[in-house]
Amino acid sequence: MNETILAGGNLTISRFFALDHRAYEPGALGTKTKEMLGLVSSLVLRCDDCITYHVIRCAEEGVTDEEFHDVFAVGLVVGGSIVIPHLRRAYELLEELYG
Amino acid sequence: MNETILAGGNLTISRFFALDHRAYEPGALGTKTKEMLGLVSSLVLRCDDCITYHVIRCAEEGVTDEEFHDVFAVGLVVGGSIVIPHLRRAYELLEELYG
Amino acid sequence: MNETILAGGNLTISRFFALDHRAYEPGALGTKTKEMLGLVSSLVLRCDDCITYHVIRCAEEGVTDEEFHDVFAVGLVVGGSIVIPHLRRAYELLEELYG
Amino acid sequence: MNETILAGGNLTISRFFALDHRAYEPGALGTKTKEMLGLVSSLVLRCDDCITYHVIRCAEEGVTDEEFHDVFAVGLVVGGSIVIPHLRRAYELLEELYG
Amino acid sequence: MNETILAGGNLTISRFFALDHRAYEPGALGTKTKEMLGLVSSLVLRCDDCITYHVIRCAEEGVTDEEFHDVFAVGLVVGGSIVIPHLRRAYELLEELYG
Amino acid sequence: MNETILAGGNLTISRFFALDHRAYEPGALGTKTKEMLGLVSSLVLRCDDCITYHVIRCAEEGVTDEEFHDVFAVGLVVGGSIVIPHLRRAYELLEELYG
Repeated sequence: MNETILAGGNLTISRFFALDHRAYEPGALGTKTKEMLGLVSSLVLRCDDCITYHVIRCAEEGVTDEEFHDVFAVGLVVGGSIVIPHLRRAYELLEELYG
Repeated sequence: MNETILAGGNLTISRFFALDHRAYEPGALGTKTKEMLGLVSSLVLRCDDCITYHVIRCAEEGVTDEEFHDVFAVGLVVGGSIVIPHLRRAYELLEELYG
Repeated sequence: MNETILAGGNLTISRFFALDHRAYEPGALGTKTKEMLGLVSSLVLRCDDCITYHVIRCAEEGVTDEEFHDVFAVGLVVGGSIVIPHLRRAYELLEELYG
Repeated sequence: MNETILAGGNLTISRFFALDHRAYEPGALGTKTKEMLGLVSSLVLRCDDCITYHVIRCAEEGVTDEEFHDVFAVGLVVGGSIVIPHLRRAYELLEELYG
Repeated sequence: MNETILAGGNLTISRFFALDHRAYEPGALGTKTKEMLGLVSSLVLRCDDCITYHVIRCAEEGVTDEEFHDVFAVGLVVGGSIVIPHLRRAYELLEELYG
Repeated sequence: MNETILAGGNLTISRFFALDHRAYEPGALGTKTKEMLGLVSSLVLRCDDCITYHVIRCAEEGVTDEEFHDVFAVGLVVGGSIVIPHLRRAYELLEELYG
């Protein structure tokens, strides 16, 4: 789907996508930490598609089950009970990924 | 001021404060990482007082200048230009702390 | 699904769930009023799953049709037209519950 | 200041202000309950001016100290720790009002 | 569905719906511009149903493909990457409408 | 202050600032329309600094008093009464600018 968006030819939009990719590349912080930052941000902003994306990326970067729970705990306490339905879907995804 | 709130004697509120403290204690992830999670969450939710608190805590946990910028970059890309005024105040605080 | 989350064994998360339960138990305000507070909060924060949960709990606590409309009216005026799609789904649920 | 806004002569805006007033008039629910709904909404949406307004209106409608704490507890659990700075200012206001 | 809501007979709610209609009628700004304002607001507030509604209304008012992309670019930069999933669905809708 | 941020030397952040500038340059839509889109977005997201910036830019682009009110009316209806304190400050700024 991103191809359709980029094919639209709007330069601001395509540069934003490049920047979005760039933000998670290793720098002073490694990609694993940056992906956890992306995950907790998605959680408190309550965006299911973003949570799904970052849970998968975090798993690829080696985030363990207990580390996921720690990220979720910070997101839940900062964002409140309104986060719970999104947390449920994140756990369902973790189960699919790890069984 | 937290004392006034806790003196109010509402058990749900005082337990929430204890939980808020607990979420940043070392677990599978260390306190430094958890404080960066708290900082990026505060940034995308655009809460100046929370940003101030977590910038100070991150500094105490040894987050370097370049690491701060990496956290800010993720927060800015996820949260958009609406985050910029809060980012400005975070930089002002960093300057006060580090000169 | 909450069982899966609680089975994860993260103490901050399980305590948050206990606190979330506690917040709606009768105190200075009764559970009916507290559930209406939870409903209007869910409405202005635009969380469908939370709205569904609190509509059902409000109905169990005896909130009448006219009282529901009053809660919705406050939520709509405070939260604006962005709330309307969630209001629609709340009305659909009310129809299912009451016919 | 509302006078300046209304003097602007935009009919959509002036009708919105009339509607905003109307939402808290007694109906199936009394004004006291409606003002508590407005307060908790302002709290989870983190609007200091709105919190100040509804705290004062709630106090006028006879909301007691313990009832305020119950409203705050629901707002804190639903909205998360990001609500705490606003809660602090609400408590400061309560102290000013009641000593 | 709006009929069910209006049949509920709550005057605040029905007047809000009238006001919501009024806000997009031609005034100092034409309906086309106002619908683009409604679209970008829906985008940064991340409400899919609202985006769908305003994309269709914008198309009816003659907003061109390139103009849509400009609206999306402002919404993406202001709202950040959290807006991307909603942008994807907006592009899917545009493709359905225009092929 | 932007200079301090850019002097920090984080490439993601400096590119974001360039993109933020780019989004309002004339394209399929002119800068005046784009600035009104930025203004209504800032209004519904309730960011005072962003509102101030876009009100000034809109004024520079020739947005008239009546056009401002139309933008505000859309923002108020979409975003709800929670927007009112920010609307007040926008009107104060307009008065300062135009007397």
